Amino acid sequence: MFDKVTIIGLGLIGSSMARAIRASGIANTVTAADISAEVCKKVIELEIADEVTDDIRSSVIGADIVVVSVPVGAVAAVAEQIGPALKAGAVVTDVGSVKQAVIDALKPHLPESVHLVPGHPIAGTEHSGPENGFAELFENRWCILTPLPETDIRAVEKITALWEACKSRIEIMDPQHHDLVLGITSHLPHLIAYTIVGTANQLEDDIKSEVIKFSASGFRDFTRIAASDPTMWRDVFMNNRPAVLEILQRFTEDLTAMQKAIRKGDGKFLFDFFSNTRHIRRQIIDLGQANYVAPGGVQQEGTPPAEVPHKASGHSG
Amino acid sequence: MFDKVTIIGLGLIGSSMARAIRASGIANTVTAADISAEVCKKVIELEIADEVTDDIRSSVIGADIVVVSVPVGAVAAVAEQIGPALKAGAVVTDVGSVKQAVIDALKPHLPESVHLVPGHPIAGTEHSGPENGFAELFENRWCILTPLPETDIRAVEKITALWEACKSRIEIMDPQHHDLVLGITSHLPHLIAYTIVGTANQLEDDIKSEVIKFSASGFRDFTRIAASDPTMWRDVFMNNRPAVLEILQRFTEDLTAMQKAIRKGDGKFLFDFFSNTRHIRRQIIDLGQANYVAPGGVQQEGTPPAEVPHKASGHSG
Repeated sequence: MFDKVTIIGLGLIGSSMARAIRASGIANTVTAADISAEVCKKVIELEIADEVTDDIRSSVIGADIVVVSVPVGAVAAVAEQIGPALKAGAVVTDVGSVKQAVIDALKPHLPESVHLVPGHPIAGTEHSGPENGFAELFENRWCILTPLPETDIRAVEKITALWEACKSRIEIMDPQHHDLVLGITSHLPHLIAYTIVGTANQLEDDIKSEVIKFSASGFRDFTRIAASDPTMWRDVFMNNRPAVLEILQRFTEDLTAMQKAIRKGDGKFLFDFFSNTRHIRRQIIDLGQANYVAPGGVQQEGTPPAEVPHKASGHSG
Repeated sequence: MFDKVTIIGLGLIGSSMARAIRASGIANTVTAADISAEVCKKVIELEIADEVTDDIRSSVIGADIVVVSVPVGAVAAVAEQIGPALKAGAVVTDVGSVKQAVIDALKPHLPESVHLVPGHPIAGTEHSGPENGFAELFENRWCILTPLPETDIRAVEKITALWEACKSRIEIMDPQHHDLVLGITSHLPHLIAYTIVGTANQLEDDIKSEVIKFSASGFRDFTRIAASDPTMWRDVFMNNRPAVLEILQRFTEDLTAMQKAIRKGDGKFLFDFFSNTRHIRRQIIDLGQANYVAPGGVQQEGTPPAEVPHKASGHSG
């Protein structure tokens, strides 16, 4: 379907896309470009691209599709380099966790003849780098596309086909709405996880070793989220400030109410609050976005393989 | 080794203990007692105890070991009932997530001739009730015992043997120190998870449905923790107030600093903070308390089966 797809930035997402696109056969040539000589060497070793280069500008020459898969803060610099080298009719997309800021960074550098279809795959792990990618990363995962009102529908269809080749499910959304929804589902949870692990990290050494030893009681889940890539996440928070600050404000109000209930010993408030939150989990399971783990840790039939069940994951208080 | 072990309260933990103790053969008779007729019926159906009764007092007659496995707030009422029926030399233990409050609730009701060895298995899932228990729940998991200075060492050895029969690893700790360590590793993470899911629950309906749909981006992990038993967790927070409020205060300070850094656009602060938290995850993996998930989601060899790896768990922002 495509003669040449160029992927710029071969981290976890970019390298997984390279693998998935090659496995799908949707492109004759997959070109990988990364400014890091070390990453390029790794990509050659892994044999996950047809061409590998550290020359970002020339990598996009003749490309039908260009995937910008770098931290959000590096998008503008990449756009500036590739802009003049893009062929007429090429479609540029990205994988950034914020969308309005990425549009602002990309758009001014793209020629009129080039189409922009921003995207965000809701997939990943806490591990970074090309060696940690895998072709199945996007299977049954959502990929949100945020085209602008003036975007050519055929360009949107091409990026949809690209993600369907990676076995993703596609959703179209307004960029600012995306930034608000992801601010709640992703950015705030990551901020909270980073903070709580940071709080523990500042404890005295003797108690810190015990926190690590007994982490299975809840803390461990937070450490996994807080092991995510620091550069990527710095850029997310720097580029989605209004939404993150707004939802953080709501969270802080709720946490203050919780603190007051504990201080006052208001058991009814706590019980009611804790009962309500169970329903949300139920809805997520019903939607097939998480698996119910049956007694004995056996995964219930009929649920998708999107999540590995947490058998005996250690939450007992 | 024991003629009769009585378990009071057949929820997730109590019913899992019944299964594990019977599987081990360490007791001639396992007696299950629960005030709920429904739970008793379920336990009979599941065939996980030799005797089942809703008469708490009489269930402990002749028992060598009594395991009080009820929410922390119900411990005192149980102790009051069983106190006069316990045989001389019996050992009473519990499974509560807070230890000083449980000691205060249990001790006044036990005769001089009875030994108290409080315990806390660091194991569980977000599911409640006898139908969700399983014999392997405690395998390779820590169980913290908090005997008092005057406790007979032979009584401690008996409870150690009981938990070793459940394949747990044993740690001895001071009760108040336990409450502080678990306040950090367990109680604060649960409080935060409940709060963030509660914050999302108060959103407008249209955005709430999208939060559920795109939960895989981080939020989903919090919903699992926030699906834990409301009664149990109300009692934890009501009974470990000083430690929880102290650690919550530290967390709030750190979150405020994070908020300020985002507002000011202080990328260096954010990057440094996010880099430091990665080390804690590494230490937990090195200690064998979590598994490293290799590329492609394949579990690395040599790590214990304590945690099922989160393959492609969807953290991408």
